[in-house]
Amino acid sequence: MTIQELQRAYRSGKHTPTEVIHQIIEASKEYEDYNIWITKPDMEWIAPYLNGLQKLDKAKYPLWGIPFAMKDNIDLAGIPTTAACPAYAYTPTEHATVVQKLIEAGAIPVGKTNLDQFATGLVGTRSPYGEVHNAKCPERISGGSSSGSAVAVALGIVPFALGTDTAGSGRVPAALNGIVGYKPPLGAWSTKGVVPACASLDCVTVFTNNLDDAEIVDEIVKGYDPACSWSKRFEQEKQTVPETIYIPQEEPIFFGPFAKEYKKYWKEALRQLFEMGIHVEQTDCSYLRQAASILYDGPWVAERWNDLGEFVTGHTGEIFPVTETILRSGDNPNLTAASLFEAMHQLQAYKARTRELLKDAVLIMPTCGGTFTRAQVRDNPIETNSQMGLYTNHCNLLDLCAMDVPLVNEQTQDNPFGITIFSLAEQSGIVKKCAKLFL
Amino acid sequence: MTIQELQRAYRSGKHTPTEVIHQIIEASKEYEDYNIWITKPDMEWIAPYLNGLQKLDKAKYPLWGIPFAMKDNIDLAGIPTTAACPAYAYTPTEHATVVQKLIEAGAIPVGKTNLDQFATGLVGTRSPYGEVHNAKCPERISGGSSSGSAVAVALGIVPFALGTDTAGSGRVPAALNGIVGYKPPLGAWSTKGVVPACASLDCVTVFTNNLDDAEIVDEIVKGYDPACSWSKRFEQEKQTVPETIYIPQEEPIFFGPFAKEYKKYWKEALRQLFEMGIHVEQTDCSYLRQAASILYDGPWVAERWNDLGEFVTGHTGEIFPVTETILRSGDNPNLTAASLFEAMHQLQAYKARTRELLKDAVLIMPTCGGTFTRAQVRDNPIETNSQMGLYTNHCNLLDLCAMDVPLVNEQTQDNPFGITIFSLAEQSGIVKKCAKLFL
Repeated sequence: MTIQELQRAYRSGKHTPTEVIHQIIEASKEYEDYNIWITKPDMEWIAPYLNGLQKLDKAKYPLWGIPFAMKDNIDLAGIPTTAACPAYAYTPTEHATVVQKLIEAGAIPVGKTNLDQFATGLVGTRSPYGEVHNAKCPERISGGSSSGSAVAVALGIVPFALGTDTAGSGRVPAALNGIVGYKPPLGAWSTKGVVPACASLDCVTVFTNNLDDAEIVDEIVKGYDPACSWSKRFEQEKQTVPETIYIPQEEPIFFGPFAKEYKKYWKEALRQLFEMGIHVEQTDCSYLRQAASILYDGPWVAERWNDLGEFVTGHTGEIFPVTETILRSGDNPNLTAASLFEAMHQLQAYKARTRELLKDAVLIMPTCGGTFTRAQVRDNPIETNSQMGLYTNHCNLLDLCAMDVPLVNEQTQDNPFGITIFSLAEQSGIVKKCAKLFL
Repeated sequence: MTIQELQRAYRSGKHTPTEVIHQIIEASKEYEDYNIWITKPDMEWIAPYLNGLQKLDKAKYPLWGIPFAMKDNIDLAGIPTTAACPAYAYTPTEHATVVQKLIEAGAIPVGKTNLDQFATGLVGTRSPYGEVHNAKCPERISGGSSSGSAVAVALGIVPFALGTDTAGSGRVPAALNGIVGYKPPLGAWSTKGVVPACASLDCVTVFTNNLDDAEIVDEIVKGYDPACSWSKRFEQEKQTVPETIYIPQEEPIFFGPFAKEYKKYWKEALRQLFEMGIHVEQTDCSYLRQAASILYDGPWVAERWNDLGEFVTGHTGEIFPVTETILRSGDNPNLTAASLFEAMHQLQAYKARTRELLKDAVLIMPTCGGTFTRAQVRDNPIETNSQMGLYTNHCNLLDLCAMDVPLVNEQTQDNPFGITIFSLAEQSGIVKKCAKLFL
């Protein structure tokens, strides 16, 4: 299911939005054991949005009748936002800015999706609402933290869904389910009405089944929001071909039960890259891991604690156990303001290096170096999760734009694999252009 | 002494650079008790720069033969950088990027100026190299921390001098000595080769006797520096008239022995502003003080501690006593990483508010609400110093561009008073245009 297919179906009269919503409700029931939803599609609360459509001129509303799901850390007025923690739930009176923009463009919200609690995780199993199943191989993890959103799109339940991304949550589940995951630059999409994970690094993202749909959503949602402290003004995007494609000079680390397949797929992706007619160059990417260690091994965990610490302290036992352990690591007296400044200064040097490297260029890496079964993650929840972020954690710290693009061939049909294309924040157009050449 | 006067004198053959350097050496002796210098002008080390000039085509080097001083926290190869702390001194082998650019343009470094130790202070008395005297009223403070640089320009010893500015050090001494002080946006001028105070907020600045000279220096010095982590790329500056001039709605606080005069001068400055034909509007500026309190009462003191803590701990008794007290306030276990994130999130909201307010506009405030005699500061070093920053501390935290412009009339000849014009970082041209309309 894609946005453009639906638009054709509406124009030709083959389908109506009401029919499509009914299909979504049915499909959601069919996949109930996948644990996709926290607030399920239900005609009772969707109907007012459907009714609102009738007054609108189809031609003037670019997303007229297009259904979408959103991760349950993004506000939809009148529906609880849980962040996958029932004790945390609140019912917002306003939509998040991104949701408001989509609804104003004619789109219909159909549900709020399951996630790793407080968007803390990359696996999709850290939720009291159940482990989200992978769309292609249900015994495997869906990836997270935007688990339900990615799976809803990959299963064809909705044409697009919103996620969020602090350290990879908008890319890992895209890769593991074989779809497109677009993570805009910091500040390009408003985060007003989104539960903060690390507010200075949080992005709203989109999952789609193709690149055009990601661009359609981006065009509607992006833009400066005076009500969002983190919002930035960007110049008009230019979709130019990168002058250079950088790839890691060191062989990526592949892990988990499908390491062999992943290694093969990466080779295949490289072959495709080399055939694109763009200069490809190897570069030392080890500093990206050093930058990433600032996020998860360093004082950055205190940013989550600053926002959630008071809640955690007051709700012992009501938080998902692994999540509580991770959140509490931010409450560490060794994490001083001085140590944070030290980390920030180091990070600034890494940013400067990246700015030089990626001017008019992209960096391409595997989105994930492997995956796991849900049972494996249950047995070893912290280590497996860290491995999933090996090629994603550095991104927002270095203020990059990123897009996960699936490698499409017969083998990846049932064993998805994605690559990520990274660019500087102000050159998001290069990512999109490069993705088109790859797909 | 101005850059353009000197250029005319060189072109007409009225003076040679060698003569000018001799005059500078003489003038420095004459004002020896003003404690302007840490490394004094001396032909022994200046001669190589003078000799180098002879090979250069005057017409091709925009600062050919123009002497300049620099604050002694900015590196000049082969000369010690002390930051006004003898125990900290090191001799750099490379020029700071800004110094390198000036020398490449034909300028001649003639000395390194006294400062509040580690650029920590706004008074100009916190130095083992002596209290810097005010150029107009020697019993008064010069302002700091770029004390010697401002006084050298105000006394006509050099046509321009470099300072630095974290919380007002490039503006306060300009105002107290009746000259121009230009503080570029964060990242517009490289800080490579500058002793960090709060690295994320530090700027190099310039003092001049008129606006044209500040622009001449800015044109040469600004620009992206790949070797500086904090460097940024800016678009071409547009010198447009601001749509609105904002002034504080609350009456500024005037203090110290000249409060009455300062109040009168501010009224006079307002009268001039109203006559400029630009829409003037009052605005609530109280949030700027809240933002500023983040710098000095909050976790930002830990940034200085992160860079200097190790030195301070190892050199007890070798640091200026007041400075040591202030630096050690950064070593406080209550200053956690979480508290710093909280301050950063608050600050982000203040930034967003300022971004909305100052689009195509400027804010104008008195640079200082008063001044003190050196004796008064000696008696009460911490409180007097804080008062000096009342209208300057918020600036770099909010990433503003700022320029101190003197109010010129008969009374301010011997009792200088300056206003500061603030703009958004990306609109530095508006500050310059507005300054021209005012002066």
